[in-house]
Amino acid sequence: MKLAKLFALVALCIVSLTLSALAADPLSSWNDGKAKQAIVEFVAKVSKKGSPDYVPPTERIATFDNDGTLWAEQPMYFQAFFVFERIKALAPQHPEWKEKEPFASVLKGDVKAALAGGEHALLEMAMATHACMTTEEFYMIVTDWIATAKHPKTKRVYTEMVYQPMIELLAYLRANGFKTFIVSGGGIEFMRPQTEKVYGIPPEQVIGSSIKTKFEMRDGKPVLVRLPELDFVEDKAGKPVGINAHIGRLDKALDEAQAKDWTVVDMKNECKRIFAWE
Amino acid sequence: MKLAKLFALVALCIVSLTLSALAADPLSSWNDGKAKQAIVEFVAKVSKKGSPDYVPPTERIATFDNDGTLWAEQPMYFQAFFVFERIKALAPQHPEWKEKEPFASVLKGDVKAALAGGEHALLEMAMATHACMTTEEFYMIVTDWIATAKHPKTKRVYTEMVYQPMIELLAYLRANGFKTFIVSGGGIEFMRPQTEKVYGIPPEQVIGSSIKTKFEMRDGKPVLVRLPELDFVEDKAGKPVGINAHIGRLDKALDEAQAKDWTVVDMKNECKRIFAWE
Repeated sequence: MKLAKLFALVALCIVSLTLSALAADPLSSWNDGKAKQAIVEFVAKVSKKGSPDYVPPTERIATFDNDGTLWAEQPMYFQAFFVFERIKALAPQHPEWKEKEPFASVLKGDVKAALAGGEHALLEMAMATHACMTTEEFYMIVTDWIATAKHPKTKRVYTEMVYQPMIELLAYLRANGFKTFIVSGGGIEFMRPQTEKVYGIPPEQVIGSSIKTKFEMRDGKPVLVRLPELDFVEDKAGKPVGINAHIGRLDKALDEAQAKDWTVVDMKNECKRIFAWE
Repeated sequence: MKLAKLFALVALCIVSLTLSALAADPLSSWNDGKAKQAIVEFVAKVSKKGSPDYVPPTERIATFDNDGTLWAEQPMYFQAFFVFERIKALAPQHPEWKEKEPFASVLKGDVKAALAGGEHALLEMAMATHACMTTEEFYMIVTDWIATAKHPKTKRVYTEMVYQPMIELLAYLRANGFKTFIVSGGGIEFMRPQTEKVYGIPPEQVIGSSIKTKFEMRDGKPVLVRLPELDFVEDKAGKPVGINAHIGRLDKALDEAQAKDWTVVDMKNECKRIFAWE
């Protein structure tokens, strides 16, 4: 009897220890490999007071690309689906598009032909779907689309195409005093309506490509109008420029990148599951 | 004896209550007038859960102008002193400036004549002192200057020319879950080296005017070079554009401004003391 009780107690302890260990792992989608270990060690050493690598909380900045880093980018950038679907939605107001490239190809469902026009065609499609409206109107259009549009392969909304291991990493960094940013080639006002809900990243911590805007009064109401003119492309050599413009803390990152070996993470190898619904 | 003890106790209570009341007032430099009351009431209603005006912490954004709002702007913008003093410091490397306006007038100490050239002259002086160096070099120059240059009237360093009531207001808002930003016509990289220490506002929450920068490798080291070309002027109709670009939460502010009476604060009337050293 006594022994049985003891066994029961030991069993209970083991179960509860296992449960709390499971609950306690903030990176549970990650395999217990080198990458996970490097992340945990890095966070420990920069957040431990007195450590030679200590970084005060106000200087703990973590930046993330979006497409292919925080959410999927296959079979093409999700913002490209937005462009093509918006062209189809707007076609009734643009009868001339039936004859005019690259729009005619999009309406025929031939994406490849639409993209054959290169950068110029791309820009024309982007402006036709992103500009000549107020920021508030664009916000509503993006919000509607993101709530309803479905990924062609998985048939899930795009906000379910976010990588679960990265969601865990973002939360883990924030729990350790980091401020998390997105720095992406994607449209800044295309990303901002969703990033807070999906990633826990507020609009002011999202940096992306932008078009110019202009302050105007419309019917006595102050608005910002989106102009069909590129402002900034947050890609390649534009990335450090944008990080400096928005965050103003670039120098240390550049020094670090040069001085230290960085851990390159391939999610396929490092993670147990990629999407939350898997 | 008993009565004496009671009196002592009551006296002690009064003293300690008074002390804690003094310590508890986070806006102690403000007079107990309408403006202070409006601030306290506003903060209370937006931060009280269940209040119809409740704003969740992630959406509590407070923006401040800098010149004439957080620090003084008399007898002229402090950044203008920086420009004139840098021209004098750089003059030995530019013998041609002795004959060339607006530099010649600056070197003679005639600010008025230097400014007679209008916007073009101003831009020329700004570029000669702000561009054609890396962001890191500019950071060092600004940091050195701000640590040593003195205000012509008070003979104090410029970081002591900050308004104490506004420092209290910034801290009060942050203590109530607000994220505080600077949105100023001043140079973004001129402000950023000081704002964290002086105002408790980190670089990524500072928005200002900017010149273009370019990513480059110099001696195998990645740098951003400041180009002699205006990027963005964060003033007048540019302010809402900049707020939207950096913070991405403009619409609500525009609605609010229109829908409600805003309290206009004149520090001379509302505050007991302006500078911390007064």
